[in-house]
Amino acid sequence: MPLHLTPAVAGKTEKRGICGKDLNKKGTPAGDLAIPEAAGLAPGCVFLLCVTCFQFLHYYDIFSVITFFRNGFRGVLHPALVAESWIVDYNAALATIGFMLFLGFVDDVLDVRWRVKLILPLFASLPLLVAYSGGTTVSIPRPLQSIAHLPSNLDLGWAYLLFMVLVTVFSTNSINILAGVNGLEAGQTFVIACSVLLHNILVVSGFFSATESVREGNLFSAYLMFPLAAVSFALLWYNWYPSRVFVGDTFTYFAGMTIAVAGILGHFSETLLIFLLPQVLNFIYSLPQLFKIVPCPRHRLPVFDPQTGLLRPKDQPDWNLVNLFLQLFGRCGENALCIRLLVFQTLCCGLAFVIRYFLQGVYKA
Amino acid sequence: MPLHLTPAVAGKTEKRGICGKDLNKKGTPAGDLAIPEAAGLAPGCVFLLCVTCFQFLHYYDIFSVITFFRNGFRGVLHPALVAESWIVDYNAALATIGFMLFLGFVDDVLDVRWRVKLILPLFASLPLLVAYSGGTTVSIPRPLQSIAHLPSNLDLGWAYLLFMVLVTVFSTNSINILAGVNGLEAGQTFVIACSVLLHNILVVSGFFSATESVREGNLFSAYLMFPLAAVSFALLWYNWYPSRVFVGDTFTYFAGMTIAVAGILGHFSETLLIFLLPQVLNFIYSLPQLFKIVPCPRHRLPVFDPQTGLLRPKDQPDWNLVNLFLQLFGRCGENALCIRLLVFQTLCCGLAFVIRYFLQGVYKA
Repeated sequence: MPLHLTPAVAGKTEKRGICGKDLNKKGTPAGDLAIPEAAGLAPGCVFLLCVTCFQFLHYYDIFSVITFFRNGFRGVLHPALVAESWIVDYNAALATIGFMLFLGFVDDVLDVRWRVKLILPLFASLPLLVAYSGGTTVSIPRPLQSIAHLPSNLDLGWAYLLFMVLVTVFSTNSINILAGVNGLEAGQTFVIACSVLLHNILVVSGFFSATESVREGNLFSAYLMFPLAAVSFALLWYNWYPSRVFVGDTFTYFAGMTIAVAGILGHFSETLLIFLLPQVLNFIYSLPQLFKIVPCPRHRLPVFDPQTGLLRPKDQPDWNLVNLFLQLFGRCGENALCIRLLVFQTLCCGLAFVIRYFLQGVYKA
Repeated sequence: MPLHLTPAVAGKTEKRGICGKDLNKKGTPAGDLAIPEAAGLAPGCVFLLCVTCFQFLHYYDIFSVITFFRNGFRGVLHPALVAESWIVDYNAALATIGFMLFLGFVDDVLDVRWRVKLILPLFASLPLLVAYSGGTTVSIPRPLQSIAHLPSNLDLGWAYLLFMVLVTVFSTNSINILAGVNGLEAGQTFVIACSVLLHNILVVSGFFSATESVREGNLFSAYLMFPLAAVSFALLWYNWYPSRVFVGDTFTYFAGMTIAVAGILGHFSETLLIFLLPQVLNFIYSLPQLFKIVPCPRHRLPVFDPQTGLLRPKDQPDWNLVNLFLQLFGRCGENALCIRLLVFQTLCCGLAFVIRYFLQGVYKA
């Protein structure tokens, strides 16, 4: 089953090449800044094109596709039987991610107000909600079944759609607010995308036990995560300290939405939330400032000390993970801070795998 | 069957209201211009939201929806049987139009080069092509059948997909290049959208004879054309001479793509080309300049004479319909010129109906 991905590997290098060109060319909308903003545009467009073309792969029997590539584009492609509900999901995902990319770019260009930003994903997730053809049934964790005398499966109906909206809104904004250090946005996206991809492959290959529909969902998610990992790696190349481009809301919104869509249509939103643990912590820790209980400046960045070249938290530190790391682990350079945060991200993803491995069978049927 | 549209009428006024607000708020990206550019953004977003929500209407039995609205949102909605291929088409259309709107806005902000512009619709139409589940069979006109001894139906296969791409590229660019006068872009879109909508209603209601699949396609097109007519009317309100907003490539690309998608998925691309007659003429007449046989300036606008307040063609007139009208019918004010062009557009659409009426049965089975 991981073979599904093999034909795409060939295109990976090329994809990076395209990214590189586009970044240099397109990344100059804000003429006042020395470093181009909104460079997320190029990877976003490349991602959409890749995902669109990946759809072709699913139309044909995968083994005939591989033979086709090995024989140098000669031979016959056998059409595979594709469930139309799969194509519906696919196109709804495409519409949603494209819409979010669009709104992110609009935000970068027009500087939408902070409160409005929070609900932008709501609009973008509409195509997904309307076209959602999957079940609205959740399986209740075993411990909860015995405590609350709930059935093993519960149909949530409209509440499930509400849950979907909340996941998209959270995921989209959470990546956007864990930011402010060179390379952090693209880096965390890369780590999360790789982890989710690995998780998908483990499920699809049968290492993690799963029902057929869950396996199908994870394959779907892998189709989204593979290009996401590729384009965020390419972007990281340019965004790593010292940044030659800034990713902008364009990228953070688009990446967050892609991850959310993968989690929802892949039916592993719970596991996804463990992958997103740093974002969850940052979000909860930021809540007092988001709701203006604690005063919130325009940019919640640490202070740069030109003499030592190190970053330190403000005298009244902002309530986010970036500043918390500086407080906990002491002052450090921007690059070191980014690496510390990415290591934490990787640890959380590793934790997710451990939890997922030990809980299977115990937690759910 | 026109009843399908009734519930939407209620939302129309509200839609205009939203447009108005968005236009004033969002239409200020290019700070240097006194008149906001790229105002097509607001109608575009409203359009996408409307179309997304229209999908709900198709999910339920139309009569139960009407009863539901009449009873003040009380009662039961009966789900209708929806073909999944319909939802696939719908979401592919949504993804394509959204993608084009996004590219149009990118173009407005980043000023993409002229040659690149021509192929932008190619990328945007990819989701449509990949998800296209309809037939690739065309019915051959009767006169041609007897002359060339062709069968009544011919499967074009890949050639049909190529034809789809050409229609999208043509339609998207043709509206963009018939421009330069206040109110013209929004005006022609409004006239075309209304005409196509009327055509759809006539086919769906059975006034024009058609097979069941063609009728279904026309209903689909009506779902797209109704909001397009509404939002372009709202935009026209602000774009009419003297313009308070400029529509930008955002609107022209998005409108052109919507019309193309409606024509393709509605299976009436031939009739559509008669509706687009002024655009076709303008495109053919512009070809020498597009291919640089005749020198082409950045903007192919007529010359404004401040003393008389009238427009006159340049000494070496540009090769487009706007200048041709000035040459043929004499100098006039900007508003009069726009009205003349829109009258011509309306006449062409009227002609399309006459042709369509008299040719049915004769031209095709």
